Order: sequence, then C-alpha cells, then structure tokens
Amino acid sequence: MSLKLDSVSTLLNEPDAAPVHSVTLFVALVSACIVIGHLLQKTRWMNQSVTALAFGLCTATVIILTTNGKISDILLFDEDLFFICLLPPIIFNAGFQVKKKQFFQNFIIINLFGVVGTLISFGIISIGISQSQGLLCYFLFGNKILIIIFMCWWSCPGFACYLARSLGAILSATDTVCTLQVLNQEDTPLLYSLVFGEGVVNDATSIVLFNAIQKFSVHVTPDTVMQFTGSFLYLFSLSTLLGIAVGLMSAYIIRKLYFGRHSTDREVALMILMAYLSYVMADLFQLSGILTVFFCGIVMSHYTWHNITESSRVTTKHTFATLSFISETFIFLYVGMDALDMEKWKIVKGSPGTSVAVSSTLLGLVLVGRAASVFSVSFLSNLANDSPIDKIGFKQQVTIWWAGLMRGAVSVALAYNKFTSSGHTQRPKNAIMITSTITIVLFSNVVFGLLTKPLVRLMLQPREESSEISSPKSSSALLPLLANGQDLASELDSVGGGISIRRPSSLTMLITKPTSTVHYYWRKFDNAVMRPIFGGGGEESPPNDILH
Amino acid sequence: MSLKLDSVSTLLNEPDAAPVHSVTLFVALVSACIVIGHLLQKTRWMNQSVTALAFGLCTATVIILTTNGKISDILLFDEDLFFICLLPPIIFNAGFQVKKKQFFQNFIIINLFGVVGTLISFGIISIGISQSQGLLCYFLFGNKILIIIFMCWWSCPGFACYLARSLGAILSATDTVCTLQVLNQEDTPLLYSLVFGEGVVNDATSIVLFNAIQKFSVHVTPDTVMQFTGSFLYLFSLSTLLGIAVGLMSAYIIRKLYFGRHSTDREVALMILMAYLSYVMADLFQLSGILTVFFCGIVMSHYTWHNITESSRVTTKHTFATLSFISETFIFLYVGMDALDMEKWKIVKGSPGTSVAVSSTLLGLVLVGRAASVFSVSFLSNLANDSPIDKIGFKQQVTIWWAGLMRGAVSVALAYNKFTSSGHTQRPKNAIMITSTITIVLFSNVVFGLLTKPLVRLMLQPREESSEISSPKSSSALLPLLANGQDLASELDSVGGGISIRRPSSLTMLITKPTSTVHYYWRKFDNAVMRPIFGGGGEESPPNDILH
Repeated sequence: MSLKLDSVSTLLNEPDAAPVHSVTLFVALVSACIVIGHLLQKTRWMNQSVTALAFGLCTATVIILTTNGKISDILLFDEDLFFICLLPPIIFNAGFQVKKKQFFQNFIIINLFGVVGTLISFGIISIGISQSQGLLCYFLFGNKILIIIFMCWWSCPGFACYLARSLGAILSATDTVCTLQVLNQEDTPLLYSLVFGEGVVNDATSIVLFNAIQKFSVHVTPDTVMQFTGSFLYLFSLSTLLGIAVGLMSAYIIRKLYFGRHSTDREVALMILMAYLSYVMADLFQLSGILTVFFCGIVMSHYTWHNITESSRVTTKHTFATLSFISETFIFLYVGMDALDMEKWKIVKGSPGTSVAVSSTLLGLVLVGRAASVFSVSFLSNLANDSPIDKIGFKQQVTIWWAGLMRGAVSVALAYNKFTSSGHTQRPKNAIMITSTITIVLFSNVVFGLLTKPLVRLMLQPREESSEISSPKSSSALLPLLANGQDLASELDSVGGGISIRRPSSLTMLITKPTSTVHYYWRKFDNAVMRPIFGGGGEESPPNDILH
Repeated sequence: MSLKLDSVSTLLNEPDAAPVHSVTLFVALVSACIVIGHLLQKTRWMNQSVTALAFGLCTATVIILTTNGKISDILLFDEDLFFICLLPPIIFNAGFQVKKKQFFQNFIIINLFGVVGTLISFGIISIGISQSQGLLCYFLFGNKILIIIFMCWWSCPGFACYLARSLGAILSATDTVCTLQVLNQEDTPLLYSLVFGEGVVNDATSIVLFNAIQKFSVHVTPDTVMQFTGSFLYLFSLSTLLGIAVGLMSAYIIRKLYFGRHSTDREVALMILMAYLSYVMADLFQLSGILTVFFCGIVMSHYTWHNITESSRVTTKHTFATLSFISETFIFLYVGMDALDMEKWKIVKGSPGTSVAVSSTLLGLVLVGRAASVFSVSFLSNLANDSPIDKIGFKQQVTIWWAGLMRGAVSVALAYNKFTSSGHTQRPKNAIMITSTITIVLFSNVVFGLLTKPLVRLMLQPREESSEISSPKSSSALLPLLANGQDLASELDSVGGGISIRRPSSLTMLITKPTSTVHYYWRKFDNAVMRPIFGGGGEESPPNDILH
C-alpha cells in the first residue's frame, strides 16, 4: 500500500467551513461517545462500535438538517487520515496486547483462516458479482447502469472481472472489533485468539490482495497467478521481518542505554516513535505496514517491555490501549458521519432499485463467502487433527463466522481509494459502489452488531457453565486446546516430567503437533540466545492490570 | 489566534517529494535525537534542545548537499502544525506538572514578570526598532531596503510603527525550555516556578499581543489603547475561565461515572480528549488556547487526577510528559531544519550587510529589553516587599534574565504567520525579517543555550551549598520564600498554632502577604465546596514517580 499523504486530512482541509469547527466537533463527539458508551455498557444489545456509529449518524443528520447539506464535506471519509493516523495504533496495540502463547500455538490455523479463508471469501464474492450481474440485469431489465456493467462484462470480461475482483478484495476485509469487544480473552482464550488473529491477518491479506489486483494486469494467466503469489509471499515475509527487526532494535537500544535511569519519558517516547517508525518504514519500502507494526508490537511486548522501568510499563500498556481505543471510536463515528454525506446519495438517488439490489446481492455474497471460507477451513483443520479434543466445534465455527460478518473501516477506506479521487466522484457507477459498501458496513455493524452480544452469549453459555463445573466432556474444543497447550508447555519445561493419564505422551505430541514443536525449539532458542541480548522476562503479554 | 487548519501539514503536504519520506525522516530523527540526547546527558554543555537544533541543522545540510536543494520544502516550518499539534501538549503538561502551591503563592510576581515584563520588553524592542532604522540607515547608507523602510517610517510612521510593533511582539516570546531543563524543581522551587510560570504567561501575552496588534488600527490613540487593554483583559479572563470550566467538567464526569470500574483506558482517553477539547474550543471562541489549556491542566491535576485509578494516574502523568517531550524535541529539530531552507536565504543573499546589521540590532534589543523588564519588575517587586527575606537577589535576577534570552518556536511561528503566506515569501523585506528571526533563535539557543548549564550552576552554586549547611543568612531569597509559604500554610492549617520567633505573626502576614491570604481562603473554599463535588486529594501536583 503506498500512502498518499497529500491529503492527510480532508477533514481539517476544508477552507470554507471554518475547519476548527470540525476538529472541535470531532473531539467533542468522541468524548461524548466514550461517556455514552460507558453508560450503555450494561445493556444487552449496544456496544461501543454501534454507539459510535449511531452517534455519527445522528450528528450527520443534525448537521444536514441545520445547514441544508451545505457543509457536508466535514462528513467525508478520508482514507489517508485512516491509514496514517487511525489504523497504526489499533494494529500495534493488537500485537502488543495479544496473548503470544495462544497466538503462536494456533499460528497455522490462524493463518489458514486469515489467508486461505480470505482468499476463498474473495473468490466467492468476486465470482458471485460477475455472475449476478447477468442475473440482476434479468430482474431489473431496463436499468441503464446495470446494462452498462453487463455490457462491459460481456464485451470485455477482463474489465468486469477486474471490477469484481476489486470489490471482492474490498468486501473480504472483515472487522472483528465488534465481536472482540464481546468476547472475553480470559474466558475463551482460544476463540479470542482465533477471531483476533484472523482479523489481523485478514486485514493484511485483503489490503495486500487489493494492491496486488491494482498492480497486475486484468487478464488472469498462469503467469500473473505466479507473479501474484510471489509478490504476496514477498510482502508477507519482508513485512514481518521488518517489524521484528525494528522491535528488536528498540529492545536492544533501551536495554543497552538503560534509559530508565534518567527519565521514563525518554523510554516511553522511544517506544512510541519506533513503533510508528516501523509502520512508516514499511510504507516507504512499499510493504504492508499493518503486518510490520503488528509484529513490531509482538516483539516489543516480548522484549522491549521487559527492559523498561515499572512506571513505563504501566504507561506504555495503557497508552497504547488508549490510543487504540480512541482510534476505534473515532473510526466508527467517522464511518457513521460519512454515511450521510449527501453527494454520493444524490448521484444514486435516480436508481434506488439498483442500489438496493446491488447492496443486498453483495450482502448475500458476503454471508455466503464468509460461511464457505470458515466452514471449509474448519473442516480442513478438523480433518488434519485426529483427536476429537482439537476439533473446532460447530458453535465455535458459527461464532467465528459471525465475527467476520461485520465490514468496517478498512472496507470503506479501500472503496474510497478505488472508486473516488480524493473523496469525490461524479460517476454513477462509482457512487453506487461507494454507497453499497457503506450500506453493507452500516447494515452489518448495526444489525449484526446489535445481535452479537446476545448471540455470543447464547453460543458460549453452555461452555461457560461447563467450565465452571469443570466437565472435560462438554467443554468441547475451546478450553482443552489451551489447557492442552499449557500442559504441553509445562511438560516441555520439565522435560521427562510426569505424563497425565488421558493425554498422549510428549513424543507423540511433538509429532502430531508441529506448532508446539516449533514453539518448544523457539523457547529454547529464546532463552539461550535472544533474551541475553534483547532482554525480556516472562512469556506473557503485559498483564491486564499491573497495579491491581 | 485563529487557526488556519487548511495547511495542517505542509510537512506531509508535499506532493512531489514522496511525503512518506519526510514522515519517516522526522520520526527517525526524533528517535535518534532522543538517543543522542540521552548519551550527551552527562556532558557539561549540551542539552536536549541544543542537540535537537544541531541535529536539525546537520540533517538539513545533508539533504541540501545530496539533493542540490531540490526538496528543501521538507524543511519548511509550518506554523499550523506547530499551533495545532505541537504546542498544546507542551503547555498542557506544563499546567499538569506545575507545583501549584508555589505557582499560586507567587502568582502576582509571575504575572508581573509575564505580563508587565513582556510589555516592557515589547515596548523597548519596538521603539528600538523604529529608532535604529534611522541609525542603521546612517551606517549602511545606500542600502535600498533600509532606505525603503526608513522612508516608510518617515513618511508614514504608522506603518513602520506597526511593523516595529509586530516584530516587538514576535521577539518578546521567550523560550524557557532550555533553562528549565537545567534548573531543578526540587532544589530551587521558587526560581523554577518563577522562570516556568513567567514562560507560560509570557507565551500567552505575546501571542495575545501579536493578535491584538494585527487587529487594531496602526495609529496609536487613547481609544485604541483602551480597546487594546480591554480586549487583553477579556481574552485573559475568558480563556482562564474556559480552561477551568472544561477541567472541572472532566473531573465531575469522571468522578460521577466512576470510569475506572470498567476500564482505565476510557478515563485516560477522556482526559486526553477533554484537555485537547479545551484548546480547540478556545480557538473556536477566538480566545487564547495556551492560557485555556494551561489552566485546564492545573484543574485536571488538582481534581480529575485524584478521581482516576492508580494505573491511570501513572499513565496520564507519564503520557502527558512524554507527549510534551516528543513535541519539544520535534520543535527544536524542526526549527533547526527550517533554518537551512534555502528559499529565504537566496532572497537576502544580495544584502548580507543588512542581514547581519538587522539581526545584531534585534539581538541587542532583545538583550536590553529583557534586562530592562526583568530588573525593573524585580525592583518593583523588591520595593513592595519590606522584609529582606522576600527580595529577589541579584543572582536570581540574572538567572531569570538569562532564562528569557532564548527565543524559540513561538517566535518562529509568529514570524511565519506575519511575514509569509503559507510558508513562502518573495518580498526581500519579509525574507529579511524571517531570516533575522531564525538567526536570533539559532544564535540565542546555540550560544546562550550552551552557556546555560555552566552559568546556572555558577549562579546557584553558593546557594546550593548554603542550603546544604542550612544557613538562613546566605540562602537569600530563594528557599526562604518557599519555606515561608510552607510554614504559613501549616500555620494556617492549625490556626492559632505556635508562632516562630523570627517570623511575624499570622495576622501581620495575612495583611502583608495578600497572595497567601487569598490562598488561605481558597483552601477553605476548596475543602468545603469544591472537593466534595469534584474530588481531589492533596495539594501537590502528580508526584515525580508514583511507583518509586
């Protein structure tokens, strides 16, 4: 993804409409959102995302009503602001706070979901779009836009395929924030780490996919597939390596210079700056900033965080979480406000039928694509795992499926990047794509989002109860996998220690669980080589509340 | 000050020169500055500001040499970035970390220095400029630019006076960061609070002054003086009130809703957002954001800070300090880089004599103006205080004078605001003003800045030794004033308690020390009315290290 910073802030960049108004407005709205979100915490349905979305919609309505739509430019979503300011803290914090043990023990399955699942979803959505164009045309015969699209598709399949592929990539980017707010990392660590890890890898995959589609020729040949795969692997590995390198550098510098002796502010400042540095460097080298900053966060929490003073630890942990929280709230508020930007709705006003048809088709494809990817990947994963204890249960599959139904800011940002030039468009076809994306984002977040809390509770209720009475039978695949991993770790720590009765022996596990084997050697290497150089204490990520 | 956000970031706003480069460059440079600054901590001469300035100059040189001056736009100082992003955290943190007891006990003298002192300095510099134009013209006869200025001044004194007044306001804005880095708040609390408090009030005064000059007519009549005074008082009082109101609101909300119960991130986020909200609201109402955010910081540390959880306290304290630290480093780096922006130097290249003459005249005026203001205000203050113990000693006066010699980013920002349009100028007169300001900023920071550490140590050496041997005679005016205040406070707390032999009685002190009287009633009011509503524990600002 190459950033175009030249419109860093259309939001602030509005010469006519007294721009300080909009900054004040946004800061005040985010504050209000936080207060209201706090008050609604206890309710059954609402969560922070939906609150912020609703707040944005209400504010936009008020602004439009009071100004007759004149200053609707305030409402315009700015992809650059999103990619430069709002996304990095969220992803970095994700890496910084992730429970590394679970994440790496489920590394393969997370990557299956994140990469293969996203590719399946992308394939289904884009093929579905290509096919449904003809179908829709049949139902809405006479509609000009669809005829144009259809004609394009028919006469020049490359271009239509290209459009369909772009849309497929845009709509493959899930937004799991909503579900993660409901899931509890302590209660359901495996499910949390699956949903969470998949979310990060999925974001990276869809952005890399989107950029690859823009770059390569519209005709799919074996050559382009090879090129595409190559560039994909190149981006993934180099981005990861860069993030790890910057993270290790920060650990080394802070360890060697022992900043805390003089000033805690210096070490905190250095951590924040180097985290951001990893992101902008990735963009400079045209890598995936998301992957880089995510792995930088993991390395920083594993090494750097243990080299700093006690108060810096508390500070960094909460600062990163707070920045991420503010960014998330801001994004949902922003998407909500942008949804009512009149410009694009006016363009598609003439063809409400098309809008509804396109939106509902796309929404259907999203549902189907997500289902296909989750259930097929789960099936594959369950096939590979012989022991019934490692299988992903149906309820868990449904939860993972549900978690990925929401579409969020990444989709909106990619849609703006694709279909507008600096936030504006006059072409009806592009306007429809934007409004459809927004409709899907709004619908999935509000409708699915409101249902998430009840659904997750319904799905996980039996499990929670069972975990309370500690029945190994009904706790299905969730806790056991973790418990398994933890036992394994402790077994490995005390090599040759007592083997529990109902578990296979260490050796068998090393053969059947390759991830754990890697994990075992990694721990040996980490203790022998890495920690003496880069510092670092425990395996755990920053604890949830260091002072309590 | 009305913000023009429409060029929020010329830095990022550079379409040709691959703007992600400049972000990466700046983030990397600030990181490097922090590391180098840490390594140079122990040296006798260097401090963080000078390090950052030197770093900026070196980088600019390298850029110019490697690109033949092509992408020198990266180097351009952006006043909006400064006023919107960099200044607020510094000023807020100043209010948040200030030792409130000393600050308010010395409130009158701080305001004397900050307001009256700045006005005296402004008067001397602007009158000096008007007068020296003729003088300079005599020495550099034949120089076209000066003849033009001189002619303007002669034929149309209003305009020249206007220019002189603008320059006077620009050069009255001192930068005490450099001295504050050397002074120790624990060792010399009074001097620290004087230098520090004066610095903040001075910034606000000079910005208010600058804006007032832009607004009012160029001819000074009794009417305009009245108007000016009125607008000055209006801005000061309303800005202060707004800051206090927002601070109290944050305290009330956090106390009533008890955020910490659910999430520390929410309360930290709310504090950060409301602090910034106070600043942008002040700008929205065309008040002085600096004063507002400063008082918001004071109120937040007095009330809000005591309502949040333990980990949020550590986090906010260090986060605000870190943000301020990053901003300061960035500003000095930025000023250093901007100094070598070739555009303006090319324009003044033709008249090096004028440049040198103007710069050295202005520098001389700065020295004289500062001396006049500090020594006269000290004299007034010493006249008003009968007891020799309250007088400001000569060495302290010299330290205060020295602390205000450095000119910093506020001067540069005001000069850009006045003499360029969005960072560019083609008029030689304006270019000379910009380059002179930069010369003064560089010279004062590098030369005076390097001398600050040795000078302050030389000046304060006897006092420190004396405080070690606890001799009340030689400790002059510094510690006694504080000790006095502290004793007074404890006397007031236990009304009717024992009166020390060499001190006047409580009653006499209440009469002779109006600030303390106000402070006494304020404490009663605070304990009886404010704290039950807004919370708040001790009198002190956040302690230096809560965990150690």
